[in-house]
Amino acid sequence: MRIVLAPDSFKGSLSAPEVCAALARGLLRAIPHAQIAMRPMADGGEGTLDAVLASVPTGAHRETARVTGAGGEPVEAAFGLLRHDGTDTAVIEVAQVVGITDAAAMRVPVRARSTRGLGELLRLLLDRGIRRFMVGLGGSSTNDGGSGLLAALGAELIGDSGAPVEATPEGLVRLARIAVTSFDARIAQCDIRIMSDVNNPLNGALGATAIFGPQKGVLAADVDAIDATLAAYARLAESAFGRSVADGPGAGAAGGLGFALQLVGGTMQSGAEVMCDLVGLDAALAQADWALTGEGRSDRQTLLAKAPFVVARHAAAHGVPVTLVSGSVDPSSLDALSAHFAGCFGLPDGPLELSACIAQAAALLEARAASLGRLIAARPFPPAGPGPDGHVK
Amino acid sequence: MRIVLAPDSFKGSLSAPEVCAALARGLLRAIPHAQIAMRPMADGGEGTLDAVLASVPTGAHRETARVTGAGGEPVEAAFGLLRHDGTDTAVIEVAQVVGITDAAAMRVPVRARSTRGLGELLRLLLDRGIRRFMVGLGGSSTNDGGSGLLAALGAELIGDSGAPVEATPEGLVRLARIAVTSFDARIAQCDIRIMSDVNNPLNGALGATAIFGPQKGVLAADVDAIDATLAAYARLAESAFGRSVADGPGAGAAGGLGFALQLVGGTMQSGAEVMCDLVGLDAALAQADWALTGEGRSDRQTLLAKAPFVVARHAAAHGVPVTLVSGSVDPSSLDALSAHFAGCFGLPDGPLELSACIAQAAALLEARAASLGRLIAARPFPPAGPGPDGHVK
Repeated sequence: MRIVLAPDSFKGSLSAPEVCAALARGLLRAIPHAQIAMRPMADGGEGTLDAVLASVPTGAHRETARVTGAGGEPVEAAFGLLRHDGTDTAVIEVAQVVGITDAAAMRVPVRARSTRGLGELLRLLLDRGIRRFMVGLGGSSTNDGGSGLLAALGAELIGDSGAPVEATPEGLVRLARIAVTSFDARIAQCDIRIMSDVNNPLNGALGATAIFGPQKGVLAADVDAIDATLAAYARLAESAFGRSVADGPGAGAAGGLGFALQLVGGTMQSGAEVMCDLVGLDAALAQADWALTGEGRSDRQTLLAKAPFVVARHAAAHGVPVTLVSGSVDPSSLDALSAHFAGCFGLPDGPLELSACIAQAAALLEARAASLGRLIAARPFPPAGPGPDGHVK
Repeated sequence: MRIVLAPDSFKGSLSAPEVCAALARGLLRAIPHAQIAMRPMADGGEGTLDAVLASVPTGAHRETARVTGAGGEPVEAAFGLLRHDGTDTAVIEVAQVVGITDAAAMRVPVRARSTRGLGELLRLLLDRGIRRFMVGLGGSSTNDGGSGLLAALGAELIGDSGAPVEATPEGLVRLARIAVTSFDARIAQCDIRIMSDVNNPLNGALGATAIFGPQKGVLAADVDAIDATLAAYARLAESAFGRSVADGPGAGAAGGLGFALQLVGGTMQSGAEVMCDLVGLDAALAQADWALTGEGRSDRQTLLAKAPFVVARHAAAHGVPVTLVSGSVDPSSLDALSAHFAGCFGLPDGPLELSACIAQAAALLEARAASLGRLIAARPFPPAGPGPDGHVK
């Protein structure tokens, strides 16, 4: 039996590679001769890099670079390098540079945080000849509209007085014009794929500041002013770069990094779809009899292009049954989810508190996989007749 | 696909027939054309009668009789009547007469409670010509050594003064001798099968009073005295009936009813095994592709002849994979359990408190069965190679 394991991480508990390892241990207890292909997934947020490093069949290696963190202090940011379709490719996780878990940066107010370090990282990689980038958005602490990235790549942010302004929400208040004569020309030669499942525009009621600002520290009273600042910046930037992207889906991702990256030619893609491509999921599924996927918590949101749903779609295309094993499965979403999975299973085997579920996640996963494996192995089962609800093949 | 459902009750939550119904609803959502045989199980305790009434393929009907409850008040006790191997058979649940959930009886101290009503019920059934009895022990509130049953059937309990004594722990203190000249002779013609999984002797450190007395209200300080009273009673009773059973396994079941019933010729049997026989489990399994069993909580005790384990043994004999679906599965027992089941699954699909698990048990069971059904239906799965751990066929 050939089994593909393609879970997302269980956020706050286990990385996707750890989920794979636990599932594999359990399956091998039940089906010792199973051939298991581990393809840990990600959606472009935190954990994307780890999943890439663990998954990419042709090998990926991890390096780090010292760049400016969101708060101005240097950070040692990890990134991945790999060959993708014959091209040297860098995998960048925004959270590695301007992550919301960077305690030092979080002591600096959000109005003074910048994505400058991401531009620095791109420059370093351009210097090494890299021209293809997979950039995972998600988990950022910044709300600068990506102005820091643009500035670090050579865009000049100029104030009323003619002096440069900081590429931060508070600096952009004085922004009068943007000059791109010194902008790094190599960017135009690049293939930049933005991994994100955020569809928000840059500004307005559904924009970066209104929706994601508060969790980064934007005060409710400041939302409108900052949003107006970013809107004015966006008009100047769009004019300077000759592209209009602020109102499009994803411009509001990562505090406007989605805007800046699209402005310089990047394309928005589903993070999970990019991962499927990177890790060769289809090739693995083509050989598979069964697949398992999962995430920390599954609910209706899962069906909005989260990794397990993307895996299910790919598995369906190959006629491979895919079972969902998540930390928890929202009971009210179970019917909707069930249409896409060959069974949906949460972790606990009895009454258990959330904290215990998280603490025991690896053991619970292993046990669940072992039980599922034993059920599958304990055949023969005859044909079941027409499929369940007509949905599962 | 033909599926046998043979769960025990989920104590405190769902009866075995209710468990069957929930499992069936879920399975039929996943496998609409499944043929489902419901064989709710029991172990001789509370719920045995309901399971019999729901399970016996040739039909069983329910009647009630008004007899003396444990505390002296009349109770309307249900029993079942059915044909078993061509013989009219009564199924008696001790808890229907002297149940620990009888609030009126529980207001009477345990030293004054008696099993007299069970003897009355047997007499009523003898009068109707019944000679085969399946008596489910479990859930009793009494600790009278079964003296009430013996007295109601005609045994005379005589005190020092020559006057009769009450068939209660406090009455037996004055017991001097037992006369059986008026004992109902029809009992000797009977086939009495005692359904129980209690193996304790009547007396001593593992006896009825020491082990089960406290949960019925015996004070710790009174255990030794009551145990001595029952031991003295047992010597007199054994001498009167010419049988020695007090030290054997099961004499301590149901406060000594196990002693009294064996004394008059009853045979101890595994409650679950008797149920398998009554409900024709083997015939159902002979036609089955898959079986599901379960109980409120599964742990190592399950492997001591609890219903799910008995079902697993019968299923194994027929080469039918049997999956365990219980309210909870003790994680530390999972390895031991896994050797006997094609997967062990608890109910919740995420962090959930015990009270919520109990309240939502039917919906959780339905969802779990639907997911298991979808997994089984979502084939083809190729041969799994050598069996899991070498255990599951």
